[in-house]
Amino acid sequence: MKILVINSGSSSLKYQFIDMETNDVLAKGLCERIGIDGVITHKKSGAEDYKKEVDLKSHDEAIQLVLSMLQDDTYGVIKSIDEIDAVGHRIAHGGEKLKESAVIKDEDLEYLYSIQNLAPLHVPPAIKGIEACRKLMDGVPQVGVFDTSFYSTMEPESYVYPLPYELYEEHQIRRYGFHGTSHRYVASRAAEMLGKDIKDLKIITCHLGNGSSITAVDHGKAVDTSMGFMPNGGILMGTRCGDIDPSILPYMVNALGMSGEEVETIINKKSGLLGVSGVSSDARNVREAAAQGNERARLAEKILVHGIKKHIGSYVAEMNGLDCIVFTAGLGENSADVREWVCENMDYLGIQMDNEKNASAPRGQEADVTAEGGKVKVLVIPTNEEYMIALDTATLAAQDK
Amino acid sequence: MKILVINSGSSSLKYQFIDMETNDVLAKGLCERIGIDGVITHKKSGAEDYKKEVDLKSHDEAIQLVLSMLQDDTYGVIKSIDEIDAVGHRIAHGGEKLKESAVIKDEDLEYLYSIQNLAPLHVPPAIKGIEACRKLMDGVPQVGVFDTSFYSTMEPESYVYPLPYELYEEHQIRRYGFHGTSHRYVASRAAEMLGKDIKDLKIITCHLGNGSSITAVDHGKAVDTSMGFMPNGGILMGTRCGDIDPSILPYMVNALGMSGEEVETIINKKSGLLGVSGVSSDARNVREAAAQGNERARLAEKILVHGIKKHIGSYVAEMNGLDCIVFTAGLGENSADVREWVCENMDYLGIQMDNEKNASAPRGQEADVTAEGGKVKVLVIPTNEEYMIALDTATLAAQDK
Repeated sequence: MKILVINSGSSSLKYQFIDMETNDVLAKGLCERIGIDGVITHKKSGAEDYKKEVDLKSHDEAIQLVLSMLQDDTYGVIKSIDEIDAVGHRIAHGGEKLKESAVIKDEDLEYLYSIQNLAPLHVPPAIKGIEACRKLMDGVPQVGVFDTSFYSTMEPESYVYPLPYELYEEHQIRRYGFHGTSHRYVASRAAEMLGKDIKDLKIITCHLGNGSSITAVDHGKAVDTSMGFMPNGGILMGTRCGDIDPSILPYMVNALGMSGEEVETIINKKSGLLGVSGVSSDARNVREAAAQGNERARLAEKILVHGIKKHIGSYVAEMNGLDCIVFTAGLGENSADVREWVCENMDYLGIQMDNEKNASAPRGQEADVTAEGGKVKVLVIPTNEEYMIALDTATLAAQDK
Repeated sequence: MKILVINSGSSSLKYQFIDMETNDVLAKGLCERIGIDGVITHKKSGAEDYKKEVDLKSHDEAIQLVLSMLQDDTYGVIKSIDEIDAVGHRIAHGGEKLKESAVIKDEDLEYLYSIQNLAPLHVPPAIKGIEACRKLMDGVPQVGVFDTSFYSTMEPESYVYPLPYELYEEHQIRRYGFHGTSHRYVASRAAEMLGKDIKDLKIITCHLGNGSSITAVDHGKAVDTSMGFMPNGGILMGTRCGDIDPSILPYMVNALGMSGEEVETIINKKSGLLGVSGVSSDARNVREAAAQGNERARLAEKILVHGIKKHIGSYVAEMNGLDCIVFTAGLGENSADVREWVCENMDYLGIQMDNEKNASAPRGQEADVTAEGGKVKVLVIPTNEEYMIALDTATLAAQDK
C-alpha cells in the first residue's frame, strides 16, 4: 500500500509519498508561497533535488503539481494516480468531536469548518488540502490525522480550565493539547526500544522545538499535556510564553496602555526565547550568545530548562511514577546541553543520565542515554509524524475498502 | 515587649495586641465598613466580645478607636499608649526593593506609593494604616512585614516570566509570590515540630484558603511559589483561575466579543471553585454539593486537587527531593478530604499519609499525619501570620532602639 501524506500550511504544503510495505519514503517535497507566487522543492529517493518556481494560485494547484511530479518521467515514482492508495492529512485540530484519525466524510468537513476559529492558521489550509485531493483523486480515501486526538483520553480535571464552566460547555474553551501525533509516535517507539508493552509503562515525552510541549503517557494513554487551548500553553517556546498568571494581560492593557492586539502579539510572537534573550527565537543562536556571556540569553535557557523540569515533576506526581522520559523534535533531538540540564539533579525522581552517552548521541538516530543502573530510561527519539500519519491512513484505508 | 499588629484592608482593619514575653494575644479585634459607616468588634483575652457601631470615616479614625479600646477601663489591656513598644503592619506587596521586614522610613513610604498599582486593593490601605499610626504614636517604630519578601531568595529563572524582558526591567512584571508570611511561619514551625534545622530540610507548604498558594522552601529559602505577578496565579482558588494558557484571554475578547473588564472580572471573580461548580466559591458548600451528586462541584474539587498535586510534583523536581509537606490555612487546616486526596497515590515521591490520623486531626491544632514509615513528613499546621509579624516587629524594634 502506498500513502501520500500531506501537511498543509497557510501558504505551504509538505508531502511525503511512502511505501508502507517497506516503510520507504519514495518521494517528498514542499510547495511554498502558495497564493503569492509559488515554488516547489521535490526529491525522489536517491535522486537530486528538483526545485522550480511555478505559479501556485491555490492549494488545489499545489496538489495538482504534486501529483504530476509524482508521475513525472524523471522525478516521479508512479505511473498513474491509481497507485496512490490513500491520502493522510495532518490536521492541527479535531475539536471535541474528531477524537480519532478517520476517513473524512462530508459531515467531518462540515465540523472542521465549524471549528476553524479554534486554530485559524492551521485548520483552513487543511480543509483546502482535503477538498483539493477529493476533487483530484475521486474515490481515494482521504484520512484526517489530528494533532489533538491523542489527548481525547484525558480526564476532565486535566482538560477543563478553572474558568466559568460555560466557557467550556458553550464555547469549547478547554485544554486540547497539540503535537499529539509526535508524542504518540515517540511514546510507541520508546516502548519498542525498551522491549515492553506501552500498557506497562509510564512515559513523559518532551517535544522540544520552536513550539514545545510535554505529555504524560500513562499505560499508553495521554493523561496530560502542557499545551492548552491554543498552542501557546505550557513552557517557554521560541516566541511564545506558555502558561502565565493571566492577570498580567489586563495589567498590560490597563496600566501600560497596550492594545489587545499588542498583547496578543507579545504573548505569541515576542515572548519565549526571543523575548527573554533579546537575541533570537532560535535556541542555537541563544546558546551561542549565552556561551559568549550574554546573561539574558543564559537566563532564557534557564527558564526553558526550569519549565521542562517542573512539567516533568508535575507529571510524575500525576502518574505516581515514571519509567521513561523521551526527548524529541529539533531541540530535543539536537541539544545535548538542554537534555543534560533537564536531567541533572533529578535522581530523586529516578532520572539519571549518562552525560557522555548523551553528548555523543548521533544526530537523527535513536539513542538510550540512561546512566548505568538508572531507574528511569532516558531516550532520544527522532520524531516522525509523517510515518505515524501514513500508518493510521493505511490502517483506515484498509478498513474502508 | 508588647506589639500591636495591624492588617489594613480597603474598608477594614484587623488588629492583635501581643505580649512577646508570653506569646499571649492580650486583645484583638476588627474594624469594618471604614468609610461607609463603621463597626468595631473587640475582644480582650478572657472577656466577652465587645461590638459597637461607630462612625469610622477613615483608617485614621479606626486606629484612634483601636488605641482607645486598648486603653478602655473595661475592655482595655494597657493604661497608656506608651505600653505599645512597636507596631507591625502587614503589607501585601514590597515590590522589588522591600525585600525584608523593615522599620518603615519616609523613603520606604514613598516607594510604597510608587508601587501601589501592583496591588491596588492592598497597598493603599496599608499606607494609610502606617501613616495613621505614625501620627498617633510618635516615636513608636512602625514595622512593615511584606507578603512578598519571603520570595526575595528566588532565582531569576523562577521569577522572570517568559515575556519580553523589558516588561520585567521597565514595568516590574515578574513573579512576586504572596502569602509569604504564612509560608514562612509554617515552614519554620515544621522544622521545629520535626526537631530539625530548617537549613537541613526541603519543605513544600500548601496555603489553601479562599486564595491559595504553594511554596517550595529549600534549606530555609523560598525557591518557587505558585502565585505570580498578582495573587491570581498558580492553582484554582475560590473565584480565581490560577495560571492558564494566556491565549484564552484574547480569544474571549476577539472571538466571544467580551470587553477587557469582563475578562478581568471572569478570571478574578467568576472562576475557580465558583466558576467550575456553579455552586459557590466556598469549598465547604462545594463539598456538600459534590456529596449530593453535583458533578460540576465534584469536578471543581478534582481540578483543585489535580493542581495541588502537580505543583507538589514540580517543586519536588525543582528541589530534587522532599522531606516535609505542610497543609495550612482554612482549607488546608480543616479539609481532611482535600489533604487525603492530595496525598493519595503519591508514594513514588515518598508521600504517604495515615488517613485515620488525618481524618481525626483536631481542628486548630498542629498534627503529624504521616503514615508509619512514611519518608516525607505530612504535617497540618495552623498558620499564624500575626505572630510572625509580631516576631519580626519585636526583633526590628529592639535593633532600632
